[in-house]
Amino acid sequence: MERIMMAHGSGGRLSHELIHSLFQKYLGNSFLDQMNDATIVPGQEQLAVTTDSFVVSPLFFRGGNIGRLAVCGTVNDLAVSGAAPKFLSLALILEEGLPLEELERIIQSVADTAKEAGISIVCGDTKVVERGSADKLFINTTGIGYSNRYFVNPQQIQPGDGILITGTIGDHEIAILSDREGLEFETPVTSDCAPLNGLIDSFFQVGVKCMRDPTRGGVATTLNELAQQAGVSMLLKEESLPILPGVKGACDMLGLDPLYLANEGKALVIVKPEAVESVLQVMHAHPLGHRAAQIGVVQEGKPGLVLLETPLGGKRIVGMLEGEHLPRIC
Amino acid sequence: MERIMMAHGSGGRLSHELIHSLFQKYLGNSFLDQMNDATIVPGQEQLAVTTDSFVVSPLFFRGGNIGRLAVCGTVNDLAVSGAAPKFLSLALILEEGLPLEELERIIQSVADTAKEAGISIVCGDTKVVERGSADKLFINTTGIGYSNRYFVNPQQIQPGDGILITGTIGDHEIAILSDREGLEFETPVTSDCAPLNGLIDSFFQVGVKCMRDPTRGGVATTLNELAQQAGVSMLLKEESLPILPGVKGACDMLGLDPLYLANEGKALVIVKPEAVESVLQVMHAHPLGHRAAQIGVVQEGKPGLVLLETPLGGKRIVGMLEGEHLPRIC
Repeated sequence: MERIMMAHGSGGRLSHELIHSLFQKYLGNSFLDQMNDATIVPGQEQLAVTTDSFVVSPLFFRGGNIGRLAVCGTVNDLAVSGAAPKFLSLALILEEGLPLEELERIIQSVADTAKEAGISIVCGDTKVVERGSADKLFINTTGIGYSNRYFVNPQQIQPGDGILITGTIGDHEIAILSDREGLEFETPVTSDCAPLNGLIDSFFQVGVKCMRDPTRGGVATTLNELAQQAGVSMLLKEESLPILPGVKGACDMLGLDPLYLANEGKALVIVKPEAVESVLQVMHAHPLGHRAAQIGVVQEGKPGLVLLETPLGGKRIVGMLEGEHLPRIC
Repeated sequence: MERIMMAHGSGGRLSHELIHSLFQKYLGNSFLDQMNDATIVPGQEQLAVTTDSFVVSPLFFRGGNIGRLAVCGTVNDLAVSGAAPKFLSLALILEEGLPLEELERIIQSVADTAKEAGISIVCGDTKVVERGSADKLFINTTGIGYSNRYFVNPQQIQPGDGILITGTIGDHEIAILSDREGLEFETPVTSDCAPLNGLIDSFFQVGVKCMRDPTRGGVATTLNELAQQAGVSMLLKEESLPILPGVKGACDMLGLDPLYLANEGKALVIVKPEAVESVLQVMHAHPLGHRAAQIGVVQEGKPGLVLLETPLGGKRIVGMLEGEHLPRIC
């Protein structure tokens, strides 16, 4: 089996061979094919930029792999910011000894997901470190989007607004957890890892005030950030949270709270009150939004406070994630 | 001593504290302070984009550190592409246990170098991996520049053009090598790591056809790439190569060829024949260009062939770097 060697990262002949046999083969496009120190791309007046490194372990998991995740994560950060994702960079840090076949499957997946999201990989970089100096493969993607649409700003959030989620929560983290630990649940859980720009395009104009994707730290941490930035309070209804039976079962068994689990294909959407129903309708019509639900409301109260109402009517404070749930979920 | 813990990468409370106490403190600006999933920045019609990951070891070396290097490397890729560097992303992969004080010095250096280069860090990301899953700290920077100037294209290179370098070669790699291996040379060598956009601005309009920065693989590999892309041959004069005595001594002692050593603050500049003298004059007037020299000429001949003429008049073929000189120099 062919494996990555230190010389693949030297900038010399083996680096060039890797570029031609793998990156240009799968990812080639008119931008990447410029092959200069920087790539020239068309811009516009207002851009959105975001960056994310991916260190997920294992590299392959039920519902995706680090390559698909690296495209989705960055595309989604642009999309929830009200931008149309356009261009992604792709930078790899490889551990000496990584099987080339694994790298090839991952690059293929990057290519497929880029196509699905309608974006182009426009530049790249490959570094190789000695065995034991990294864990197989880390990926950074940085994304550029066109920010034509109105600026999605937490300042617009007001008491009365609806808090929506585009689907079930916790799928990604439970999928990683079960793959990593070899846990078998009755209903296997698949990562929700998906590019959300198509879904967001479909409902964006119907009354959206702000969006975020609840990745690391989950729905709880993301809503805490939003409530703080907007200076509002939020009330969630526990029984309205869409949760797959497999995720529910895993949480019960392991003592996890689904509100703190990472998602990689979901958006939290704050919507003005009169638009809640129509936004939900549009979401439900999209394959990635059929389990969308209103999970709470924005309300007057202590700025930054997020409360959860239990089915029996009790209320508890939902804070930010403390410590670490599970390392390296993305 | 405070150290990085896994929870610093959780996306929860400790992540937020790190962002406020370190990244916002040193790097804060109107873009970074937006604190949304993506940052809105002003664009323009034509952009240049480039990405680079940095895995240099050791983190601190004579003349710089991984933070300064991460800004310079990306700024320089934009500058040699004929663009004005504007915005950089900064993504960190931290190994659990990294002393916070080291991280702080590196972030401070990122801030200083960004200021020196006149660019803004506009978005960031932090991941933490377990002890032993990375080597202390890896950094990715992705850069966006405004590409107003004419497109710097290898296709414009023609026989007769001059091949210039903005200063001495090999300084960076010898500095890393001596720091890493604890070698003592008679004249200590300092890395040339510096942002080149100011220097390039000064001579850019005087007749430049193409530029590259000879990092990994050195002058030899970079000129091979250029000669291939342009379909020309190149002839270098060995005695015209500017080399510091310390680098010369180290190369003699270790059997290294300075043409293959990495540089982090030098540009190769291809200039039309009648402009060579005036470009050199402008370079010499800049602090980063006072050792600039013409090192060769473009000529007719086998496309992609790079030759070196020795002081005695002999010629040898200078190919791309084979294998690996020294791993993790950037």
